Amino acid sequence: MKINKIGVLTSGGDSPGMNAAIRAVVRTCAYHNIECIGIYRGFQGMIEGDFKEMGPRSVNNIVNKGGTILKSARSKDFMHYEGRKKAFENLQNVGVNALVIIGGDGSFTGAEIFNKEFGFPIMGIPGTIDNDIYGTSHTLGYDTALNTVVECIDKIRDTASSHNRLFFVEVMGRDAGHIALNAGIGAGAEEILIPEEDLGLDRLIESLERSKKNGKTSSIVVVSEGDKTTGKNVFELKEYVEANLPEYDVRVSVLGHMQRGGSPSCFDRVLASRMGVKAVESLLEGKSNYMVGLLNDKMELTPLEQAIKGSCEIDKELLRVSDITSI
Amino acid sequence: MKINKIGVLTSGGDSPGMNAAIRAVVRTCAYHNIECIGIYRGFQGMIEGDFKEMGPRSVNNIVNKGGTILKSARSKDFMHYEGRKKAFENLQNVGVNALVIIGGDGSFTGAEIFNKEFGFPIMGIPGTIDNDIYGTSHTLGYDTALNTVVECIDKIRDTASSHNRLFFVEVMGRDAGHIALNAGIGAGAEEILIPEEDLGLDRLIESLERSKKNGKTSSIVVVSEGDKTTGKNVFELKEYVEANLPEYDVRVSVLGHMQRGGSPSCFDRVLASRMGVKAVESLLEGKSNYMVGLLNDKMELTPLEQAIKGSCEIDKELLRVSDITSI
Amino acid sequence: MKINKIGVLTSGGDSPGMNAAIRAVVRTCAYHNIECIGIYRGFQGMIEGDFKEMGPRSVNNIVNKGGTILKSARSKDFMHYEGRKKAFENLQNVGVNALVIIGGDGSFTGAEIFNKEFGFPIMGIPGTIDNDIYGTSHTLGYDTALNTVVECIDKIRDTASSHNRLFFVEVMGRDAGHIALNAGIGAGAEEILIPEEDLGLDRLIESLERSKKNGKTSSIVVVSEGDKTTGKNVFELKEYVEANLPEYDVRVSVLGHMQRGGSPSCFDRVLASRMGVKAVESLLEGKSNYMVGLLNDKMELTPLEQAIKGSCEIDKELLRVSDITSI
Amino acid sequence: MKINKIGVLTSGGDSPGMNAAIRAVVRTCAYHNIECIGIYRGFQGMIEGDFKEMGPRSVNNIVNKGGTILKSARSKDFMHYEGRKKAFENLQNVGVNALVIIGGDGSFTGAEIFNKEFGFPIMGIPGTIDNDIYGTSHTLGYDTALNTVVECIDKIRDTASSHNRLFFVEVMGRDAGHIALNAGIGAGAEEILIPEEDLGLDRLIESLERSKKNGKTSSIVVVSEGDKTTGKNVFELKEYVEANLPEYDVRVSVLGHMQRGGSPSCFDRVLASRMGVKAVESLLEGKSNYMVGLLNDKMELTPLEQAIKGSCEIDKELLRVSDITSI
Repeated sequence: MKINKIGVLTSGGDSPGMNAAIRAVVRTCAYHNIECIGIYRGFQGMIEGDFKEMGPRSVNNIVNKGGTILKSARSKDFMHYEGRKKAFENLQNVGVNALVIIGGDGSFTGAEIFNKEFGFPIMGIPGTIDNDIYGTSHTLGYDTALNTVVECIDKIRDTASSHNRLFFVEVMGRDAGHIALNAGIGAGAEEILIPEEDLGLDRLIESLERSKKNGKTSSIVVVSEGDKTTGKNVFELKEYVEANLPEYDVRVSVLGHMQRGGSPSCFDRVLASRMGVKAVESLLEGKSNYMVGLLNDKMELTPLEQAIKGSCEIDKELLRVSDITSI
Repeated sequence: MKINKIGVLTSGGDSPGMNAAIRAVVRTCAYHNIECIGIYRGFQGMIEGDFKEMGPRSVNNIVNKGGTILKSARSKDFMHYEGRKKAFENLQNVGVNALVIIGGDGSFTGAEIFNKEFGFPIMGIPGTIDNDIYGTSHTLGYDTALNTVVECIDKIRDTASSHNRLFFVEVMGRDAGHIALNAGIGAGAEEILIPEEDLGLDRLIESLERSKKNGKTSSIVVVSEGDKTTGKNVFELKEYVEANLPEYDVRVSVLGHMQRGGSPSCFDRVLASRMGVKAVESLLEGKSNYMVGLLNDKMELTPLEQAIKGSCEIDKELLRVSDITSI
Repeated sequence: MKINKIGVLTSGGDSPGMNAAIRAVVRTCAYHNIECIGIYRGFQGMIEGDFKEMGPRSVNNIVNKGGTILKSARSKDFMHYEGRKKAFENLQNVGVNALVIIGGDGSFTGAEIFNKEFGFPIMGIPGTIDNDIYGTSHTLGYDTALNTVVECIDKIRDTASSHNRLFFVEVMGRDAGHIALNAGIGAGAEEILIPEEDLGLDRLIESLERSKKNGKTSSIVVVSEGDKTTGKNVFELKEYVEANLPEYDVRVSVLGHMQRGGSPSCFDRVLASRMGVKAVESLLEGKSNYMVGLLNDKMELTPLEQAIKGSCEIDKELLRVSDITSI
Repeated sequence: MKINKIGVLTSGGDSPGMNAAIRAVVRTCAYHNIECIGIYRGFQGMIEGDFKEMGPRSVNNIVNKGGTILKSARSKDFMHYEGRKKAFENLQNVGVNALVIIGGDGSFTGAEIFNKEFGFPIMGIPGTIDNDIYGTSHTLGYDTALNTVVECIDKIRDTASSHNRLFFVEVMGRDAGHIALNAGIGAGAEEILIPEEDLGLDRLIESLERSKKNGKTSSIVVVSEGDKTTGKNVFELKEYVEANLPEYDVRVSVLGHMQRGGSPSCFDRVLASRMGVKAVESLLEGKSNYMVGLLNDKMELTPLEQAIKGSCEIDKELLRVSDITSI
């Protein structure tokens, strides 16, 4: 079947670069004289028929905007066959015969089921700040989030070093330590607590003791929100350290949702543009059920199923780099 | 007594612009051929004799740095006469015969006692992000903190509007609502909760209901850390709203210590420079026990005692501006 | 005549905060149950009838956007009576019976003529980065431009101090030195060349010589685009200094149009909100032909004629502050 | 010979991330109980014996600073054997027996000669914003420069789209188009002029005409400083377009040296940390005359000679991405 109308949607948590990807999808359609429809609020909007025709001028001046102009939502209705059937009918009614889905693994899981049930051509673009998707070295928004985090920690460091304090800074990343590990190195953190590496409370205390002995007057410990290795959250860590190392004046900062927003970095804008072009052109070549990704600086396709199931490991070399450069 | 050696210190919570003020103090001394000594860690360093000679080149390239190169600390020892006496003797030993103290009202209180006990010439510079000091329209760091807060909320708004969410954002300010009120207007907040104005839970709920009715799909409520008017903190507010307005998807973000850091805004750098010059030249003119401040865009002196006791009210006009522009 | 429909336009060079002012005008109209119309491309759009109804939701999420959603243009047609007559008729046709004009003195001059010819109620909001308008301590966009300039010079300073170089940095400001003077102090410039103060080439050379002698290894000289006091532009200054002080490695940077853009600072957003409210409410109170301004931190009205003719002098104290803090 | 004291220097144009690399080199030495010496002002400081012992605390709080604390310079003396001999003797006198050189191809050329003449172990780290070095997908500072450029163009776009203007924006990159190409895509440029691709004046004019026809009201053309394909610089391009497309209101902005400064991005900080660790550990493993680089997200060594001679081509796919996404 010839593809002549593509739908694009964003699903799951938003991330910087989603708008740049939408723009690239819309304009690649225009470039190939294909129609394009924006679907609002992810799968939910697909079920509710919340559609809008999109041409190249619909996406003017959004390449640098955070968030997603198509909005995002989690959809309970899409978890049931009736919801998906309704969505399929809506797409058919407006003549959409292929989809680009920008989101994380939850969104891809829904997409894959939809594809299996209705044979609908689908291409995924990995949009999440967490960088936890197999098949791409960088997810969309990850680079921007890293910059947001290091800029925040730079500010915290100003006050930490003015007061000779220790800060526990909690960063996002769900079950993955990518943000914590990279931003921790970038921010010059004393220690980095991530789910993938069992540091343990004892080594943390040792490290902080050594750090004092080495003449450090202030310290930052970056903690991934998903870290369970110490058995304590950031507030409990503060209490534990104050009890065991009374010479430390400890503070906590939970960076929170601002990590998901902001104008995308140049890296994320270029990545989004490349992914959008690749997704549409792959659909036009008759491919389906893949995710577009960046591997060794090139655009590559990974079967959606693999992208969902594959595990995306952290680079162990970076743990060593952190140990050495935080000496 | 002729002043020929001035000591400068930063005390209390650090704020952006403190380094620019130190630079101005040091260079104004050099300009008038007066010696200058930097005192580390506030009053505590004064007691411990933690001093360093400072010339114009000691303060190169710090005008744009957050934090304070002289570090800051709260000193328990300075609360007792023995501590203050030791501090006085240390200053005498190195020939310092006047002080510039950059800090908040707590620091000024200590300074005033010191002045009374030992007749020591003192000039204060109001350095705090909270803008809660009488005798100046702007404290040092306040303008920078406002920019930091609105930039953070801009990022939160990206994700809020992508997901049609309501965010409670807690900002600093101690017992004063200046940061919340101004950053709230600047960030386009739906409502602003500050200690100075009793909004009450009912009006908050009404406002959020009206906001939905007016077609707003996402909202930010800025809450001052010192606000007690609703009887609830941001986490309790989230629960209360979710219970009473189930159509809202609510999130909380506590901006935290990053608000104290960062490179100062141009406004704070210029203010710091003017205050540093004015403080030193006022001491050289024989004045003592004043705080330098900005009033009607001009440098003015206010007796330290007044600066400490006077109350610094919010501008009620701004509450109206917020009500109108958030319609 | 009762005002029941207000038109708003932006005119002349754009400046950060214009969108926040548009938002405030539109929402203040809604607050008072008055209709509001946006006029595109300034006076030219008024002549061409390029209008759009605006309600509170038309200005969602623009408080933090640079530029102007109503666009701006310079209009030759408005310089002739026929053009202005056409504009007047267009306004009458859609029932607009008062105007808020956001722009600089050129725009106000046009506005005043229009008011005289057709008795049309008008209120001005000073929008320009140059801060060269009488009747307000701050024009809209000025504070943001200062921050943009110091951030740029901070970056230039990184490379200047790494290479022991001298940079001439040209900044905007038209015939006024406000940007150069304040950003120069904020950026820690060695010297500041502005139209209002005759420094002269000789003193510049002396200053640079003294600066070397004082042990400075790198220097920034900020030059206002309107400065004629040395008889040389920045490129000629570079040549002159290289010829007379061969020990200096000199570079030039002209910051250019980026100074007009960017997300407005909190200060400019709050100022824009206050000005927008004040402008509409003043019209509703029957006032006309005034400019809204900030004087001593309060909203005040100045007759448009005075705003246009009055001269807005620099603060001479700041020249002294610059001399002292750049020692 | 066992390496027990390593010298580190920065040479050529500075770039963001150099300080993070210095920090990593110094701390990796400390980690392996090797001494480390900082050499000021590149090869010139090596000749003049401008050295400083560096321990882990010498590099506190510099990971986020632009420029280079070791300063950089171009050295004429190092081009002659006498200069290099003097440098060698100075290193011997203080016991330095290996070097890490952070710089671009010019610096590597000098390093290689030095290695050949004196058998001195050398490891290079590619530090330049231009990304024009073979053997690494990213040079140090390149990612930061891209972000600086897109942030500047975002600001220019605010004013461009408010006034319906065309801007020619000149960016750095020496003979390479990497910055222009990537920042151009990231900033949503209409056209990108780079040395590697002969666009020609005619196609530029055609593109701008088509762009008007497609309904674009404002445009950005990014021009690499090294581009000769149109035979015109940005100022001549402005005149040419104004003569041939009078409907365009054209402006020029030359971004200049600010592109070399600023706090490094997280990417550049992590890259610098990895490169610094790898450089020192490679020397300790007995390797010499290599450059450390990032290839397929891994640290790899490339012989210095190859790094100097190899050509580093642009990714042609990106030209297509630009053509499509700027439709």
